[in-house]
Amino acid sequence: MHKAFVLCCVVALLGGAGSAGAQDWTKSKWGPNDEIGAANYMTPELVVKAASLVKTGKTYALGIPVDSTTPAYPPRSFKITVVQPGQAGIPGLGPNKATYNDDILETWVGIGSQLDGLGHLGIEHVYYNGNKLLDFADPNGLKKLGVEKVPPMVARGVLLDMAAYFKTDVVKEGTAFNVKEIEEAAKAQGVEIRQGDVVIFHTGWLSLIGKEDKRFAAVEPGLGVEGAKYLTSKGVVAVGADTWALEVIPFESKNLFEVHQILLAMNGTYILENMDTAALAKDKGYEFLFVLGQPRFRGGVQSMINPIAIR
Amino acid sequence: MHKAFVLCCVVALLGGAGSAGAQDWTKSKWGPNDEIGAANYMTPELVVKAASLVKTGKTYALGIPVDSTTPAYPPRSFKITVVQPGQAGIPGLGPNKATYNDDILETWVGIGSQLDGLGHLGIEHVYYNGNKLLDFADPNGLKKLGVEKVPPMVARGVLLDMAAYFKTDVVKEGTAFNVKEIEEAAKAQGVEIRQGDVVIFHTGWLSLIGKEDKRFAAVEPGLGVEGAKYLTSKGVVAVGADTWALEVIPFESKNLFEVHQILLAMNGTYILENMDTAALAKDKGYEFLFVLGQPRFRGGVQSMINPIAIR
Amino acid sequence: MHKAFVLCCVVALLGGAGSAGAQDWTKSKWGPNDEIGAANYMTPELVVKAASLVKTGKTYALGIPVDSTTPAYPPRSFKITVVQPGQAGIPGLGPNKATYNDDILETWVGIGSQLDGLGHLGIEHVYYNGNKLLDFADPNGLKKLGVEKVPPMVARGVLLDMAAYFKTDVVKEGTAFNVKEIEEAAKAQGVEIRQGDVVIFHTGWLSLIGKEDKRFAAVEPGLGVEGAKYLTSKGVVAVGADTWALEVIPFESKNLFEVHQILLAMNGTYILENMDTAALAKDKGYEFLFVLGQPRFRGGVQSMINPIAIR
Amino acid sequence: MHKAFVLCCVVALLGGAGSAGAQDWTKSKWGPNDEIGAANYMTPELVVKAASLVKTGKTYALGIPVDSTTPAYPPRSFKITVVQPGQAGIPGLGPNKATYNDDILETWVGIGSQLDGLGHLGIEHVYYNGNKLLDFADPNGLKKLGVEKVPPMVARGVLLDMAAYFKTDVVKEGTAFNVKEIEEAAKAQGVEIRQGDVVIFHTGWLSLIGKEDKRFAAVEPGLGVEGAKYLTSKGVVAVGADTWALEVIPFESKNLFEVHQILLAMNGTYILENMDTAALAKDKGYEFLFVLGQPRFRGGVQSMINPIAIR
Repeated sequence: MHKAFVLCCVVALLGGAGSAGAQDWTKSKWGPNDEIGAANYMTPELVVKAASLVKTGKTYALGIPVDSTTPAYPPRSFKITVVQPGQAGIPGLGPNKATYNDDILETWVGIGSQLDGLGHLGIEHVYYNGNKLLDFADPNGLKKLGVEKVPPMVARGVLLDMAAYFKTDVVKEGTAFNVKEIEEAAKAQGVEIRQGDVVIFHTGWLSLIGKEDKRFAAVEPGLGVEGAKYLTSKGVVAVGADTWALEVIPFESKNLFEVHQILLAMNGTYILENMDTAALAKDKGYEFLFVLGQPRFRGGVQSMINPIAIR
Repeated sequence: MHKAFVLCCVVALLGGAGSAGAQDWTKSKWGPNDEIGAANYMTPELVVKAASLVKTGKTYALGIPVDSTTPAYPPRSFKITVVQPGQAGIPGLGPNKATYNDDILETWVGIGSQLDGLGHLGIEHVYYNGNKLLDFADPNGLKKLGVEKVPPMVARGVLLDMAAYFKTDVVKEGTAFNVKEIEEAAKAQGVEIRQGDVVIFHTGWLSLIGKEDKRFAAVEPGLGVEGAKYLTSKGVVAVGADTWALEVIPFESKNLFEVHQILLAMNGTYILENMDTAALAKDKGYEFLFVLGQPRFRGGVQSMINPIAIR
Repeated sequence: MHKAFVLCCVVALLGGAGSAGAQDWTKSKWGPNDEIGAANYMTPELVVKAASLVKTGKTYALGIPVDSTTPAYPPRSFKITVVQPGQAGIPGLGPNKATYNDDILETWVGIGSQLDGLGHLGIEHVYYNGNKLLDFADPNGLKKLGVEKVPPMVARGVLLDMAAYFKTDVVKEGTAFNVKEIEEAAKAQGVEIRQGDVVIFHTGWLSLIGKEDKRFAAVEPGLGVEGAKYLTSKGVVAVGADTWALEVIPFESKNLFEVHQILLAMNGTYILENMDTAALAKDKGYEFLFVLGQPRFRGGVQSMINPIAIR
Repeated sequence: MHKAFVLCCVVALLGGAGSAGAQDWTKSKWGPNDEIGAANYMTPELVVKAASLVKTGKTYALGIPVDSTTPAYPPRSFKITVVQPGQAGIPGLGPNKATYNDDILETWVGIGSQLDGLGHLGIEHVYYNGNKLLDFADPNGLKKLGVEKVPPMVARGVLLDMAAYFKTDVVKEGTAFNVKEIEEAAKAQGVEIRQGDVVIFHTGWLSLIGKEDKRFAAVEPGLGVEGAKYLTSKGVVAVGADTWALEVIPFESKNLFEVHQILLAMNGTYILENMDTAALAKDKGYEFLFVLGQPRFRGGVQSMINPIAIR
């Protein structure tokens, strides 16, 4: 019954006039069982080449600290509570007086620096590789496309400093990064975007946190629809930015989060949000070894992350 | 008032007969303001050297998937809930019919693969660098020693295959790894433990999850008190294992979690728990580039992690 | 856009062949702004009469204790955590050494003894008084029909002892209570069902908790579709039972939770689940003063309750 | 070990100079196994008498709506999330198109209108009837004194309108209610406080919520130490107020929450906080039938409540 309904909707969509769905996006080029998408672009050869980019030994935490004040897409929130179980009124446990803190987390995963897994965004309840919501979205954890399946993301990282490109500290909201901007910025930096790369935009937007939280979370500069198609055509593994949603907002059309749909659902390309790129940009660290090991919540849609850049 | 009481207790402890407190452990060798301990051993030179270990391009996720069945130290628990906000009964948002899953996490941080921060274990309510609980343990997040302060952990990783050393698949619970065992296992593998390393024990214990959960979580083979002092004297950054608590249980004496105290409180050495070392051990990957970017929960005691080994 | 879609669906439904929607159920007889439904049946006169039923002074807690083992409709769960903030290692706060426990709740509201508010069940995303989901279901709390709006439920309570009626301790699952059963049981007890009453069925089913949890939560005896219509025609305020969902399961037809739809959505009649009726039944307490003050979670769908019966 | 330490502390306390501990408070007059304290004062006779107070049939919800903005004692917080499990993109479940909302609660119990159970406040980690923290405070729920054990609280309610007594709308913070104030206010109203009563103070303080939240939660008028002893000597079951902590703040001495200690720990007398007394006061409803059925969280310290007053 449910399946019939969804199917009917999908058919309607596919027959629609220029809606987000391309002809055969529901079939992954990595086969009907594929759940990891663009992570397939990673190869041992590329890992070795990426590791060879390490020259200075300088490391960068791309993840930001997150707490209950971190701006987030509604109704997301974060709360951590520190407790000392069983230690009230005693000097400690055992003759060695062991004492300890523990912490409890009540949070939406999509807050702070985050990896969007392939089960995050869909088109009319159809997700990457044609997976239908009713088939895989168990309330206790996705049965397919769970974030625990994403392999170690070890790749050549490329930073595109869009703030430098636009000669500003903070790129204005609504500024779209499409083919022209991406190619010109890359050229200005002398870098090339290749298959297997992780591409990250620096816009300066993250610097608004704590200063202009409302503005930060309402709009942003970012990737445009054309740019998203361009990057997926290049075969990148993931695209990130120092913004909360990667894509340009206000959106370029009436479509909502269409860049998310193109990257995640249609191409299996991962999204990295709220990446702290300030130090990399300052150091002109345009090429680096990118390493991401995401916490592996089984059936998770997203993961709370802190990728490391190494030069 | 509180401070006076704690102080009195500490004095009593220090004057005690052979309790865990060494003479001056409350003063870090990195100065009175240091909050990162053995992470100070990492240097750009060592990062470059560690990166040069990458030869095959093979990568390993050391983090395990975690769900509500993952065995954990009581009363720790984990729950993830997948939701589709605002999408009941509609084909999607906007003309492009955007749909999405989101996930909510209710969890204790100390479950699954985890990093123990320096605010985790103390001696009579005194923690690394002499920090007293009442001075830094706010219920909404530690004011000092929070896990968000741990810098990117990029180091030479050394795997000690204790299962191979003991010629077994799963090392027996209660088996302590002290100087003899560590030195002999390292020698057998042809590796040397150096300052700035991350040392991880493979015991096979993790293979019990899902088969013998009660046994898994009740006891384990692991690091002994002498071994812990030996490793800290070598200047390692972190010590990990494929067990839930790193240290040997039943404990070697009546002291509880004394190895945790030696590593975290007395030496600022990090602990990595539930590391999935099976593939590394199988590949005899005894030396590798170790990269850990932990989610940066502000004021967090621990973090949920997935370190990456690269060879 | 969303509204158009839902409207279209509703029209389709209303035109359907014998689906649950009656002709004008989306319009409350208490006016277009009414949010409390059958609670309107309560009057001061009836409260005074109900209070006059108190003869013995015996009181009954109709709520059951709830903990993490309480069987619940998936994926609902319950967890309580007791902590002692700021008291580790100290004798207490202030010269008077005040110490305290606090508790943290992570729970789905629909577990244990619960009140179903009028925002709980709908028909094709339309709820009591024609409220459409997209108009009132904010993720941070319902904007209409929230459980905080339910007035004090003080009424004549009527217990129908269906276990006695069927001459058994535990009425068998799948046994439907319709007009015949309700009228005969009431007659056998010598009670009459009147406007403004709260009617509660005793089936013995609750006694399965802790013994046959799976059976308890999978099926149950209970109110049938005809019975539900009969009770709403009588003008009762609420209907409850010592079962987890009030209505008979397996359902009487292919319709799912149709009794919930009839009571909540179509008539604004409240539902009380997991009522502990054993002591009342044993005492033949067929008429009593029923008092329910539900915790007033703003925008809540349900509430965790413990109604009191007084005889 | 732990027990020895606590015992030592208790001895120290009892030997102290005039600290909060009276000679034999650790022994309940209802016997060594008693866990319900002053609830023992309730009798069927008193219930019948209390029910006879119902004359007008008017009912009052004493509980307030609670949401994430409700001021609370740090680090307490409240969050409710409304979800529609399994309904994204479908018209409903089954041929009858059943749809539903559910709600998830992440909250500290001690927020909004609350019942303090006897396991809430102690003196140097010793609680009502001499229960020592280490003996009963399991992190997963109190093993003794849990709030699920409190019997139905059905009693004569007495409102003391302290705002009227002080001829003001909102009694000033720091104003203590002791014997003089209580006796004079009762006399002015023509009511007498008797054994088995539930006594509730109206101060107008609750009207500050939403207007002066910081002031509301920082200080308050309320019961003084002498007044607390006076009320327990009268044999009341519970004492409440339209304030967040019942007792006067700033405190009368350097002792912290001493009134809580006297009521809960030393006498087993319950506390009701954030009671909405405005309508009762306006109606001069000084005597009424008080009915409280608290949600029965097993092992809970407190409960989220909405007592009903009926006149």
